[in-house]
Order: sequence, then C-alpha cells, then structure tokens
Amino acid sequence: MKERKPLRSEMGWSTTDSITVRGYNLPKDLLGKIDLGGMAFLEMTGRMPNPREAEVFNALLVTLVEHGMTPQAIAARLISICSPEAMQAAVAAGLCGVGSVFAGGSEQIARVLQGALDGKDANADLTAMAAEIVEDHARRKAPVPGIGHPLHKPIDPRTPVLFGIAEKNGFRGRYVALLELIAAAAEKRFNRTLPINATGAIGALLSELGFPWRVCRGVAIIGRAIGLVGHVAEEMRNPIAYEIYERAEQEVATNATAKP
Amino acid sequence: MKERKPLRSEMGWSTTDSITVRGYNLPKDLLGKIDLGGMAFLEMTGRMPNPREAEVFNALLVTLVEHGMTPQAIAARLISICSPEAMQAAVAAGLCGVGSVFAGGSEQIARVLQGALDGKDANADLTAMAAEIVEDHARRKAPVPGIGHPLHKPIDPRTPVLFGIAEKNGFRGRYVALLELIAAAAEKRFNRTLPINATGAIGALLSELGFPWRVCRGVAIIGRAIGLVGHVAEEMRNPIAYEIYERAEQEVATNATAKP
Amino acid sequence: MKERKPLRSEMGWSTTDSITVRGYNLPKDLLGKIDLGGMAFLEMTGRMPNPREAEVFNALLVTLVEHGMTPQAIAARLISICSPEAMQAAVAAGLCGVGSVFAGGSEQIARVLQGALDGKDANADLTAMAAEIVEDHARRKAPVPGIGHPLHKPIDPRTPVLFGIAEKNGFRGRYVALLELIAAAAEKRFNRTLPINATGAIGALLSELGFPWRVCRGVAIIGRAIGLVGHVAEEMRNPIAYEIYERAEQEVATNATAKP
Amino acid sequence: MKERKPLRSEMGWSTTDSITVRGYNLPKDLLGKIDLGGMAFLEMTGRMPNPREAEVFNALLVTLVEHGMTPQAIAARLISICSPEAMQAAVAAGLCGVGSVFAGGSEQIARVLQGALDGKDANADLTAMAAEIVEDHARRKAPVPGIGHPLHKPIDPRTPVLFGIAEKNGFRGRYVALLELIAAAAEKRFNRTLPINATGAIGALLSELGFPWRVCRGVAIIGRAIGLVGHVAEEMRNPIAYEIYERAEQEVATNATAKP
Repeated sequence: MKERKPLRSEMGWSTTDSITVRGYNLPKDLLGKIDLGGMAFLEMTGRMPNPREAEVFNALLVTLVEHGMTPQAIAARLISICSPEAMQAAVAAGLCGVGSVFAGGSEQIARVLQGALDGKDANADLTAMAAEIVEDHARRKAPVPGIGHPLHKPIDPRTPVLFGIAEKNGFRGRYVALLELIAAAAEKRFNRTLPINATGAIGALLSELGFPWRVCRGVAIIGRAIGLVGHVAEEMRNPIAYEIYERAEQEVATNATAKP
Repeated sequence: MKERKPLRSEMGWSTTDSITVRGYNLPKDLLGKIDLGGMAFLEMTGRMPNPREAEVFNALLVTLVEHGMTPQAIAARLISICSPEAMQAAVAAGLCGVGSVFAGGSEQIARVLQGALDGKDANADLTAMAAEIVEDHARRKAPVPGIGHPLHKPIDPRTPVLFGIAEKNGFRGRYVALLELIAAAAEKRFNRTLPINATGAIGALLSELGFPWRVCRGVAIIGRAIGLVGHVAEEMRNPIAYEIYERAEQEVATNATAKP
Repeated sequence: MKERKPLRSEMGWSTTDSITVRGYNLPKDLLGKIDLGGMAFLEMTGRMPNPREAEVFNALLVTLVEHGMTPQAIAARLISICSPEAMQAAVAAGLCGVGSVFAGGSEQIARVLQGALDGKDANADLTAMAAEIVEDHARRKAPVPGIGHPLHKPIDPRTPVLFGIAEKNGFRGRYVALLELIAAAAEKRFNRTLPINATGAIGALLSELGFPWRVCRGVAIIGRAIGLVGHVAEEMRNPIAYEIYERAEQEVATNATAKP
Repeated sequence: MKERKPLRSEMGWSTTDSITVRGYNLPKDLLGKIDLGGMAFLEMTGRMPNPREAEVFNALLVTLVEHGMTPQAIAARLISICSPEAMQAAVAAGLCGVGSVFAGGSEQIARVLQGALDGKDANADLTAMAAEIVEDHARRKAPVPGIGHPLHKPIDPRTPVLFGIAEKNGFRGRYVALLELIAAAAEKRFNRTLPINATGAIGALLSELGFPWRVCRGVAIIGRAIGLVGHVAEEMRNPIAYEIYERAEQEVATNATAKP
C-alpha cells in the first residue's frame, strides 16, 4: 500500500481550553482586536494586516459586497423561496455564479499584471509592456480584462476612489501604473472609451497587496457571500422572487401555446 | 391574467455615474469609511452600525470565521480538487453544510430568547422564564441550544471574551442575562457542566443587536464563507484533500473485499 | 485517543480488473442489462428492481424530471450565464431548491402514510385513520400534504395515470387507498376540491415500493437533476436568463429612483 | 429603454388540464412509455430516442452513476451530516465537484473528436488525424484526454463492454475508430500502456449519438446526481462521514501542536 502523507493545516485547531486560528489565540489575540476585513486577510495570507493594508483591503471587499439585482442575487432569492428552511443553500446557489463572467475579472487582470511584472526589475518599461499586452489580446480577439464597463462611462466612479485610498496608504504602485497604461493603450488601439473598471482596480490592488492571482476569486467570493446574505434577508422581509418566477413561467407558457 | 406586483428592492442599483447601496453612495459614502463587518451590518439591517455596534458585531463575525478542519472545510477542499477551475463551487459546497447541526445553534437560541423576551416589560421574571424554558426542553427531550460543548469544558473560552466586549459597549442586556439563567437552570436540572458556548453567546448578542432570529444563520454563513475561502486557498498551497479521499477509498475497498 | 470506527460502504469499489457496484460486477452484470431508472433503484435500495417495480419506479421518476420554468430552473439558468465554464455549479444551484416548498411534498405525505400504516395489520380501519389525519392537520392549521394543486383542477392529470401504472403492476395497495381516503376526507372537511396531486401520488407509490420516507426527497432530486441539465443545455442553445436578469434589474432601478 | 426579448422555452409548460414536456403530453405520451434514460435523452435532445439509441445511452449513464468513495461522494456525505434536513444541499455540494478533474474527460475527448471529424468527409485519413492530435498534445505537454487509467490496467473493463453495446446497436462509428487510433498512437508516442478509459469511451459514444461536446458534462452530472443520492441515503443508514471528519480533525490538531 502507498505510503500515506500526514495531514497538516495551519488554519486552526482546538484543545480543551484554547482555540488557535492561524497561529493566534482566538479569544485573547483576535476577538475585539481585529475586524472582519482583517480576519479575512489573516485567513488568506496567514498574517495580520497592518493598518494601511487593512484600510485598502477593507475598501476592496466593501466594493465587492453589493451589486444590486445581479443574476446571482436573483438565483439566491429564487432558491430561498424553494428551501426557506435552508438559507445556506440559497446563498450557496448564488455563490455558484461567482464565475468567469461577472466576477472573474479581478483574477484575470491580476494574472495579466503579475505575469508581466513579477520578476521584472524597477527599470522595466511599463509602456512597452502595456502595448504588448493590448496587442496580444487584440491578436487573440480576447477582451482585455479590467477595462470598460457597459454602464459606467466615461469612468467607473469606484476606480478613482479605490486608487485614492491605495495612494494614501502607499499601495499605488507598479501594478496600478501598468493597468493605467494598459487602459490608455487599449483606448488608443480600439478607439473607444475603456475606463479601468472596479474589477480591474481590485485586481491591481490585490496584486499590490501581494495576493497571488489564483486566490483573487476568493476575495470576490467573500464580498458576494455577504451581499447574497443581504439579498436573502431582504427576500424574507420583502419577497419578489415569486413574482419574478411567475412572470417568467406565464410568459413562457403563453409564448409556447401561442405558436401556430 | 393575474395582476403583477412591482419588483422593489432596497439593496442597490446603479446609474451611469452613481452606485447606490442601501441608500448610500458607494464610492463617496462607503469606500474607505466602513469596514467589512460594518458593511455586513448595513447589508443585513439597512443602516450603518455605530462604533459600539460595529465592535460587537465584528467580534461575533470574527468568532465564526475559522473552526479548523470541520466537515464543511473538508468538503470544500475535496470539491476544490475536483473543480480547481471553479473556486466558487468549492466554497458553495462547504457552505451547503451551514445547517442545523454545526451552525444552527445561534439561530435556535436566538429564537428561544426572542420568543421569551420580546414584548415582555422590564419587570419580567427572567429566572422563572429560564426554568420554564429548560423544563420545556427536558419534557420534549430536546437539547437546550447554546449551552454545553463536547470539547471546551468547563467553559468555552470565547464566551467570556464576547460578553466582555458586549459589556464594554453596552450590549450585555436582558438576552445575555436570560441565557446565563438558562445555563444555570440547565446545569442544576441535568446535573452536568453546561457552559454557554460561543454559538449561544452569539445568538444572545445578535438578539441584543436587534437581529431577528430568522436571519441569524446569515451571520454564520458570512463568517464561514470567509473561513472556507481560507481553507480552499490553503488547499491550493498545501493540498491534503487528495490524501483524505485516497485513505477513505482504500479503506472502504479493503473492508469490502475482506468480507467472508 | 478515541477508538476509530472502520469505514465501510456497500456502494462500490474497484480493483485493477473489476468494478463492483452494489455487489454487482458493473461491466458484466449491469451495463446493457439495467436501464437508468433501474440503476437508481439499485443505488437507493441495494437490489435490482423486478420488471414491475422498474416500470412503476421509472414512471415516478419520469414525472419528476420536467416542470417547466420553475424557480429552480430559472436559478440554474442564471448561474449558467455567470459560470458557463462550470455547468455542474449551475445544476447544483438549481438543485439547492429541491426543498420543502416545491419538492418536499412526496416526503411529507410518505411520512404521514408510513407513520399511519407501518406496523398496522390488514384489518386497520383506513377510513378512521384518514379522518384522524385530516383532523390533526386541521387542528394544527397545517396543510395536508399531497392533495390540492394551484393549477390542475379538478384533477391532476398525472395522478390517475400513475395509479393506473401502479395497479397494472400490483402496487396499488394500502398506501394509495389511505391517500385516497385522506383526499376524500379533506374535501369534505374543508369543502374544497382537493385532488391527489402528482407529488402525493409519488409519495404513496414510493411507500408501496418500500422506500422509507426519509429518502423520498432523493427521488425528487434525481428527477430534477435531469430536468435542470435539460434547462441548462437549452440555455446554452437559446439563452433567456440574461433577459430575465436585465428586466428585474432595470425594474428595481426604475422603481427605486422613482421614489419621491 | 432597451427593447425586451420575449422569453421562449421548449422545455415544458402546463394548462389546467394538460402538462406538456418537450412537446409531448406528459401523462398520455410519456408516463409508462419512456424510461428514465429515455427521458434524459428527450430532455437533452428534444426528441425521443429510438430503441438502439436508448440502449446505448442508458449504458453510458449507468456507467457514470457509481464510482465508490470519490471526493464528491465524501463531500456529499460530510454535508449531509451538517444539514440532515436538506438532502438536496448535500447532493448539490457533491455535484459541485463534477468539474474538470474527475468528470470533465468525456467533454474533453468529445471536443477533440468532434473538432477533428465534424465537417470531414468519409475519406478522411483517421490515422493521420490521430497522429496529429497526439503530437499536438505532446507539444503542449497536455495529457490526451480519454486514455490511460491510474488503476485499470492494461484495460479499463468498461470500455470493451460499452463498445460492444454500441456495435450491436450500430453506433460504433468514426468517433470510436478515431479514439482507438489516438490511443494506439499515444501508446507508441509515449511508450506506455494507455487504454481507452470509460470516460473516453463515453465521450466517443456521446459523439456517435450526436451530442455536442458542450453538453457532455451534463450527462456526467445526471449519472453522478443519482450516485450521490445513493451515497447520502447510505450515509443516513450507515454513517461514516463523522468518522472521516474526526480522524482528519484530530490528525491536523495532533500534527499542529506537535510542532517544535
């Protein structure tokens, strides 16, 4: 039989009188001493954020919480009227939609930025990099992630605020600079207004904070989980999912039976 | 055809140049001005917490994030090795387990406490209430929620810290008092050590903060979603799920084929 | 340390040259020799159905597959446009809604019927049982499960067909008889048309087939999983979820901003 | 405001006295006349299978149902002990793992086969195609999907049985031939035993049946949903998930606290 590997994890464990989370004594070192955003940072990175990191990271997370009546929010509400006894199933259903289309952008642009910059020294020519990135996407007919928005034009109002918070805290660095150059190069290349959207700003700032691109989707998942709980709680107070469902069902039935 | 009901929601909406969340301008009023715990409070209650509420609510949420290698965490890790391209599906899978057994306690004790106290005036006899609640559970052979812990004895180390944070902020009120009387009555009735556990403390404090019991599970869901993201991120760095799976599969095969 | 319990399962295991499923050699004994409904029966009961059982069980399952534009189907479609790379997440999201409201009825009526009949001899007075069951629900102001339908009146067209298939195969027994008496008693008691609906018929027939009420929801889950795959596949060919989402989002935004 | 698109679906709808599924009258045309595998075919393709198609399709589906103690099965069992009141959430959790690693192979090989053959005439040189496909994968250092198995060597015992059923029914055509040539070319190229595995056989046979590769994962989802219901039902009768969880939790705690 194959030799077995020991199971190790740094997340947390308990003894009779202590609870350890990421190396900290939960009741003594964390409760009352760290806020939820800081706790999320600790869970994902293994260390406490300093106040500057905490401010930037909390701002990113707050941006991600609520986006109104998204497909994920509607799905969570629909499931909550089917399984009102299982709120977790409704939130899980909505969370299943934090995929490539509505939430994957941060991950994608973080991947592009980290792929371009990591291992490059301070003299790297960011303008050339940006041009090359835009050209590469154009060649593959792939949209450049993190720029452009169907509604927020000419700018996404979240982006300058996020970059301002980052600047104040010393996190407006090379990743942000490269993304700005990419947006400028793309606007010229495609002759369209392509502002850095919130998703792009978040991908750049997570890169500044040192998050590997592979875990960036986790940050979106955290934010959206909170928003989805909010939607399900509102659905319990003020239901609309039944109405959405009935309209769709009736219209489908009407259109189907009306066929010649 | 049935008259249709208009769809209304207070969660959020956008125009070309503005994003409104729960009545606030997201970039101007929220980003950099509210932390993630406060944002969760806003999503669930529709108003900003004051600093005292924010401190208590953040402490509750931080308590809920990480509980080590729970069934939900193992499930999320197992799914993440099956669908590494869909981190959200792994977190959703784990979240499906925030149900009655491991996370429903806060909701249950909040229901008991709110059911007993809401609508009662300041002269209500809490000691009599507590005795009646314990007796009612004993009669139905139902465990009293929020007290006792398989591991943390004689006390759950989180409880005094949470109650201390609540007291400092003016939230150690009647719900906490009733829960303490319930624990004392249950210890006498069942002749066992039955400390208030963290889940019980959280149910009492959410009641102090004005959360209806029906949405208390949502607070657990938020905390656990963050913890599950942490576990999946660790699984990506330091995988153990494959080992857990292979051991179980081999043992089942060995036991099955060894049958006479 | 606590003594560990060996892990045992009868579901399946493999060796280099064999695959055993529920005690059968999968390639030799099952492939080409059992249809999917029979396989579901084997998975849930541990034995092959005889042809009569297979016919009844397949009919029940076929009934459960497709119910048109249900909340679960809409939710699955919405998630599929968010995570097109993860079809399983879309189906899982819809499946999260196979809960108490839209699919729990079979389980509930099976519980009532099995609770009343199991352990009773052949001389039991079913009419008295039915009256008592209806009275008990009336007293608790709980709806009697398995009867009545918002749309299908005066009868649910699936019920007589299912009962006919059961009769032909020798499975129209006491559970069906008791349910018919319950429906008759309820119509008299509440003075309304309360036909046995498909969910009720399925709960009675699963009882006839020997399924414990606790696993009846599993049969609904199997049926709906197939239906949800169908909806997601149609969504890929002929998308409508984006339209449902955009209408809801726009209406919410319009109603919100129109407030005085 | 943007013009709205009408919502259309061919899946199903109801009137007071009729239920239409995929154009068929459910009670009259389907119940008792189609088995569950046929119903799945109808849901996914919009037409009834002929008996030959039904036999092949049922065999594929039956192959997919049960794979023993997979990560998905363990995850579903773990969630079922957390949320025993929500069986659907447990199955949904397991289903979230029908992703690229354990179940995506059919889709991947179907994509390769359909990409190579669709639009090609009967004189196409399959041997050259196979060589090119293997070379292309070797160049990209990507594994060729559908061939090789960690356990089943030198052959996967399901493959010849599935191909035999296909041959008997007239579905052993060009897709199967190309896959066999690919396996042979890969064995030569990599100098290893690389039998066509069940996943590969299923991908080829779904291609023979006319399923577009994009929906092949749906077939795996259907099969696995049934298997997961079986596992959760066994977990209710004979629980092992608690044991799996406790072992992992204790080992992690022991290894963590034993660190120097």
